[in-house]
Amino acid sequence: MTTDTPMQLGMVGLGRMGANLVRRLMRDGHRCVVYDLDTDAVDEMEQEGATAASSLHDLADRLEQPRNVWLMLPAGVVQPTLDQLATLLAAGDAVVDGGNSYYRDDIARAGQLAPAGIHYVDCGTSGGVWGLERGYCLMIGGEDEPVARLDPIFRSIAPGTGDAAPTPGRTRTDGTAPEGYLHCGPSGAGHFVKMVHNGVEYGMMAAIGEGLGIIKHADAGLRSRTVDAETAPLREPEAYQYEIDVAEVAEVWRRGSVVGSWLVDLVADALARSPGLDAYTGRVSDSGEGRWTVLAAVDESVPAPVITSALFERYQSRELGRFTGQVLSAMRGEFGGHAEKAG
Amino acid sequence: MTTDTPMQLGMVGLGRMGANLVRRLMRDGHRCVVYDLDTDAVDEMEQEGATAASSLHDLADRLEQPRNVWLMLPAGVVQPTLDQLATLLAAGDAVVDGGNSYYRDDIARAGQLAPAGIHYVDCGTSGGVWGLERGYCLMIGGEDEPVARLDPIFRSIAPGTGDAAPTPGRTRTDGTAPEGYLHCGPSGAGHFVKMVHNGVEYGMMAAIGEGLGIIKHADAGLRSRTVDAETAPLREPEAYQYEIDVAEVAEVWRRGSVVGSWLVDLVADALARSPGLDAYTGRVSDSGEGRWTVLAAVDESVPAPVITSALFERYQSRELGRFTGQVLSAMRGEFGGHAEKAG
Amino acid sequence: MTTDTPMQLGMVGLGRMGANLVRRLMRDGHRCVVYDLDTDAVDEMEQEGATAASSLHDLADRLEQPRNVWLMLPAGVVQPTLDQLATLLAAGDAVVDGGNSYYRDDIARAGQLAPAGIHYVDCGTSGGVWGLERGYCLMIGGEDEPVARLDPIFRSIAPGTGDAAPTPGRTRTDGTAPEGYLHCGPSGAGHFVKMVHNGVEYGMMAAIGEGLGIIKHADAGLRSRTVDAETAPLREPEAYQYEIDVAEVAEVWRRGSVVGSWLVDLVADALARSPGLDAYTGRVSDSGEGRWTVLAAVDESVPAPVITSALFERYQSRELGRFTGQVLSAMRGEFGGHAEKAG
Amino acid sequence: MTTDTPMQLGMVGLGRMGANLVRRLMRDGHRCVVYDLDTDAVDEMEQEGATAASSLHDLADRLEQPRNVWLMLPAGVVQPTLDQLATLLAAGDAVVDGGNSYYRDDIARAGQLAPAGIHYVDCGTSGGVWGLERGYCLMIGGEDEPVARLDPIFRSIAPGTGDAAPTPGRTRTDGTAPEGYLHCGPSGAGHFVKMVHNGVEYGMMAAIGEGLGIIKHADAGLRSRTVDAETAPLREPEAYQYEIDVAEVAEVWRRGSVVGSWLVDLVADALARSPGLDAYTGRVSDSGEGRWTVLAAVDESVPAPVITSALFERYQSRELGRFTGQVLSAMRGEFGGHAEKAG
Repeated sequence: MTTDTPMQLGMVGLGRMGANLVRRLMRDGHRCVVYDLDTDAVDEMEQEGATAASSLHDLADRLEQPRNVWLMLPAGVVQPTLDQLATLLAAGDAVVDGGNSYYRDDIARAGQLAPAGIHYVDCGTSGGVWGLERGYCLMIGGEDEPVARLDPIFRSIAPGTGDAAPTPGRTRTDGTAPEGYLHCGPSGAGHFVKMVHNGVEYGMMAAIGEGLGIIKHADAGLRSRTVDAETAPLREPEAYQYEIDVAEVAEVWRRGSVVGSWLVDLVADALARSPGLDAYTGRVSDSGEGRWTVLAAVDESVPAPVITSALFERYQSRELGRFTGQVLSAMRGEFGGHAEKAG
Repeated sequence: MTTDTPMQLGMVGLGRMGANLVRRLMRDGHRCVVYDLDTDAVDEMEQEGATAASSLHDLADRLEQPRNVWLMLPAGVVQPTLDQLATLLAAGDAVVDGGNSYYRDDIARAGQLAPAGIHYVDCGTSGGVWGLERGYCLMIGGEDEPVARLDPIFRSIAPGTGDAAPTPGRTRTDGTAPEGYLHCGPSGAGHFVKMVHNGVEYGMMAAIGEGLGIIKHADAGLRSRTVDAETAPLREPEAYQYEIDVAEVAEVWRRGSVVGSWLVDLVADALARSPGLDAYTGRVSDSGEGRWTVLAAVDESVPAPVITSALFERYQSRELGRFTGQVLSAMRGEFGGHAEKAG
Repeated sequence: MTTDTPMQLGMVGLGRMGANLVRRLMRDGHRCVVYDLDTDAVDEMEQEGATAASSLHDLADRLEQPRNVWLMLPAGVVQPTLDQLATLLAAGDAVVDGGNSYYRDDIARAGQLAPAGIHYVDCGTSGGVWGLERGYCLMIGGEDEPVARLDPIFRSIAPGTGDAAPTPGRTRTDGTAPEGYLHCGPSGAGHFVKMVHNGVEYGMMAAIGEGLGIIKHADAGLRSRTVDAETAPLREPEAYQYEIDVAEVAEVWRRGSVVGSWLVDLVADALARSPGLDAYTGRVSDSGEGRWTVLAAVDESVPAPVITSALFERYQSRELGRFTGQVLSAMRGEFGGHAEKAG
Repeated sequence: MTTDTPMQLGMVGLGRMGANLVRRLMRDGHRCVVYDLDTDAVDEMEQEGATAASSLHDLADRLEQPRNVWLMLPAGVVQPTLDQLATLLAAGDAVVDGGNSYYRDDIARAGQLAPAGIHYVDCGTSGGVWGLERGYCLMIGGEDEPVARLDPIFRSIAPGTGDAAPTPGRTRTDGTAPEGYLHCGPSGAGHFVKMVHNGVEYGMMAAIGEGLGIIKHADAGLRSRTVDAETAPLREPEAYQYEIDVAEVAEVWRRGSVVGSWLVDLVADALARSPGLDAYTGRVSDSGEGRWTVLAAVDESVPAPVITSALFERYQSRELGRFTGQVLSAMRGEFGGHAEKAG
C-alpha cells in the first residue's frame, strides 16, 4: 500500500526502532533522510532506499522546507541533539521526539523552540521490536498545525484499523484513534499518555507474572519445609499438590479468556521457548515511565496502588530494599533474639 | 462446522452461561438434555433443539450411560445439587462443575463421589457474555479418563485456534492449549488455574483503571484547590493542564500497543458508549477468586502485591475500610488537633 | 528550669504550635518578640510575657543583631513572609523555618538569602498539640554556625533526655539526639528527615488502623451475608464469631507489647472517649509530607510499598479513586454483565 | 513485690520465654513445677527455686488439683503435647497455650478437651526477650471461669500499670487492660488479637525500615548512575545530596516525636551498636501471624494494604518472587529486546 500523500522526513537515530520506522515509512512511499552517529547503520538504511546524511547539518540541508525531523534517540541525548538542531532549523520546521522523554521536558523544549518558530511535537511510540510488522501505536502532543501536517507520516507508522475489530459501541466516525494514532493534546500530552501507558503495562505485566508464579508454586505442598520457630509450616500441604505446566497455561489463556492480551501472547512465546526461563535471573529493569506515572498519580491525588506495587516489585527484584530488610532483621534480633535465615 | 464425534451431555443450570454452552454444543451436533429450576429457561432451550428434563431425576433418566452431566450453577448451590445427583448417577458417570467453585471444594467433592465410581471434573470457564460468539477458555482438572472422554465437548465449547495467531516459539505439536482448553492436573487443578486467572484479571483491570484515572485527572492543575493546613497544594499546576479524551485513549491503545488486550477492547467500548461512565458509581464487586488467589499466594510464600492491591482497591471502593479511616482520623485529631475535611 | 544561656528570639506565627513554642522558650528564660496577623494572638502572648511586635518591620526593629527569627507558618505563606523579611534583615541574621516546608524549597530559600549573608535554617518540628508538655522533636538543616548559635533555643524546645531511657547500645557521648534535637545536614536536611518521619507516621498509623479494623470485624461470621453471584459468602463463619472490645485491645497494647508507641497511646485515648469513633467519617486528610516521601522513594530507587500503601489508603478514604472504580465496574459490565451492588 | 494470692503453675517448655515467665512468677511468690525435654533447662530452673518434673506425667502428679498448666512451646509441638496431657489431666484442670498458635487451632483444641471437662485457655504473649524485665502483654481467650481463676498468674506476668501513664480519656475503672492483660473473648480470641498485633507489628516495622532506607539513600545524587536505555537517570541529583547519620535520626525520633515507639527504641539501639547493620543480610523471616492476619483481612472484607505490603516485602527480601521477575524480564525481552541488567 502506498499513501496518497508521500512526504519527506528526516530521521535522527537508527537504532532498532528508528530503522524500523524508516522501513515502514518507505514502504508507504515516503522519502527518508537518515542520520546516526553509527555510519554502518546509515549505510544499511541507504541500501534500503533512504538518503544518507553525514551530519545533522547535512540532514538539515537535504530536507525541503518546511522540514520534518523525527528524533528516535535515548532519552539522555535528546536535549543536546535538539540544542544543535535549533541552530540548523528554520521557522515552520517541525521536530518530532518519538522516544521516551519525560513530558515535562517536552513542555520546556516546545517553549525553547517556539521563539524561533520551530514546532515541537512529542510522540509516544509503543510497539517495541514488533512494530515493523504490527505498526506502532502513537500518542501525540503538540500544536494542531504541525500535527495535522504530519498526518500521513503518523498514518503510515500506525497499525491502521486492520489489527482489531471495530469497537461495537463507537458511534463517532471522525478521529484517528481507530487507525492507531491519536493527537492527545498540547505539548507533552503525547508523552504523558505514553508514560501512563507504560505504567499500565507495568501493572499488567506484574499481574501476569504474579499469577504464573502462584501457579508454578502450586506444588508447595510437595516440597518439604523446615519446621522451626522462624517459619510457619504450610498448614494444608494437601491443597498445594499441583505440578502445572505453566507454559501451557499461558498458551490456553491466549484464547477466549478475559486476560487475553498481547502480553500473554508474548509470555506464552517465551515459555514455549524455555519453560524454566532459565536465561533470566528475575532482576527486572525499569526505565522511567513507571516512576513518572507514580509521581503523577501522587500529584493528582489519584490512588494507584497497583501500578505502584508493580514499580516497587521491580525495585525489590533488584534488591534495592536491602537496607530496609536489614533494619527489619535488626529489630527482630533486638526484640526476639531472632536470627536471619534463608528461604 | 460439526464435530466428528457428537456426544450427549446433560446441562444443569440454564443461566446465561449455561444456555450459551448448550447453544455452542448443539451447533457442533452434540445432543443436550437440559434442566433448570426455571421452566421458562428449559422451554427456551427445548425450542432451540435441546431435550427438556423436568427434574434432576428425569435428566439422569434421559441420559445414556456412562452419563456426562455439566453443572453451570452459582457456587452456593453446587454442593446440594451434587448431593442429589450422587443418588441418581452410577459408576462410570461423570459430572463437570463448570462454575466458579473453590478448588478445595473440588478436591472434597471428587473424594465424595469416588467411592461410587462417579467421576468429578472441575472446569474453570472464562469468556463471560461473549463466549457464545468467541468460545470459552477452559481450564480443566480431574482424572485422565473422564477428561479424555469429554474431549469433544471441551473442543466444541473452546474457541479453537482461530482466535489467535500461533505462538511463534511453540515447537510441541501435541496438547490442546492452542485450541483454548487445557487439562491442568488432578481434581481442583482446573479451578485453581481459573482462580489465578481471575486474580490476574483483577490486576490487569486495576492497572487499566488506574491508568485511565491518572489520564482523566491530568487536568488537576486547571481545577482550583483549597489551600489550607490539611491539604498540600499542587506544587506544579502547570504540569497538569491536559484535558485528554479518555475514550479515544482507550481506543488508540487497542492497536499496536503493548497493553493491547481484550480488557482494553471492552473499556474502549464502554467509554465509547458513555465517556463519563455515569451509569456506574465506582463500587466494584468481587466474587471469590481474587480473594482465593491472595490466600494461595500467602500460603505458597509467593509475593503478590499487585493482585492483592487490586483486591483491596475493590474493598476500598465499597468503603469497607471505614473503621480504619476513623481510627486514622481519630489519631490525627489526638496528636494534631486536625479535623476531618472533604476531598 | 532556666537555661544557662538565655537568648532572644523573634517568633512569626502564633498558631497553636507557635504559641506553645514561645511558652516553652519563656519557661527557660528566653526572651521572645512575637508577631502574628491576628492581634489577639499577639496580645495573649504579650500577657504571658512576650514582647509584642506590630509588624514584621517592628519585629526586626525589636531584635538585637544578629537577629534570630523563627517562622511557624502554614506552608503556603512562608515564601511571601520570607520575601518581606529578606528586606528587613541584615548579614549575620538567621531565619528558622519551623513549619512543614518541602525540603526542596529550603534549598532554594537558603540560596535566595545567602547573597545577603542571611542564614536560613530549616527545622522539622514534631510533637503536635502535646509538644508544650512533652517537648518537640526537632530535625534541623542548615549551616553549622547558625545551628550552633541557636543551640540553646533548640535545647529548650526539645524534650530533653527525660522522656526515654538511654539507648543501651549507645557508646558515643557527644551529639544532641538524646536531647531530642539533631542537626541532620545542610539546607533541607531537617525537613527531609521530618518529611520521612511523617511518611513513617503514615505507615505506622495505617498498620494500627488496619489491625484494629480486622479486630473489630472479627464478628463477620455473626452478620448475615447475602449469597449471590457477585459476592463470595464467608466460607468459615465459625472462625469469625468474636465481638472484641477494640478500645480495651488498644489499652492493653500500651503495656509491654512490641507495638507499644505514642500512636497506640493516642488511639487508646480516642477509643476510651468514643468506642465507635462516631465523630469521624473515616475520610483521612494528608498534608504533603507523605506524598513527598513517596516521591523521594521513587527517585532514590528505594521500594516503599508500605508507606505508599498508607498514602493511597488515605486517598481511597476520600473516594479519590472513583473514576478508576467506574472503569472497573464498566469492564465487569462489559464482559460479565455484572451489575454494581452495594457492600 | 509478692502477690496476695500465690498460686501453683506447671510450666511446660523452658526456652527463653518459658524460663523468664517462671522467673517472673516466682518473684511474685508463685510456685512453679517445670518440665522440658532439655534436662539442663529443668535443672537451671530448679536451682532458681522451681520444682523439677521429669516428664509430663510427673508434672501432672506434682500439681494440686485443679491443675494449671502453661505451655510455652514452638507451634509445631503444641498439639502432640496437648494430646498427651489430655490423658494426664482431669476435669476442672486448665491448660494455657502461651505460644503463637493459630487461633483456629485453639477453637479445635478447646473442643477436643471440653468433653473431659478440661479447660483450654489461649494466651498471646508479647514482649520478646525483654519480657522478664518489662513484663509481657497478654491477650487471653477462653471461658470465664478458668481465666478468672488464673488472674493472679496473668497479673504477675503482665507489666502492670507502671510502664505507661494512664490514658487521659479513660473513665471506666474496671478491666485489667491497664495492667497489661486482657480477656479478649472465647476460645481463640486471645491468639486472634495477638495475631493481629503481630500484623500491626509487621506494618510498623516496615514503615520504620522503609523510612530509614529513604533517609540512608538521600545521598543518591552523590553516587554516579549509569545512563543507558534501561535505567532512568536521577533527574534532580542536586536534591539528593545528603549524607545523613541514620543512627542519630533513630535516636532523635525516640523523644517527643509522633513515631516514638518501642520499635524505634530498638532500632536506635541496633544502629548505635552497628550503624551499617553489617551483621544482617536483609533477608527477613516471617513466622505465621503476619500471614494469618492477611488471611483474616481478606476473609472479613477489610482492606489491609499496609500490613499485606509488609508481609510481601518480607517475602521479596527472601527472593521468593524470583519466578515472577523472570516472567517480567522474559516479557521485556520479547517486546522490547531488553536485556536484564544489574542494579
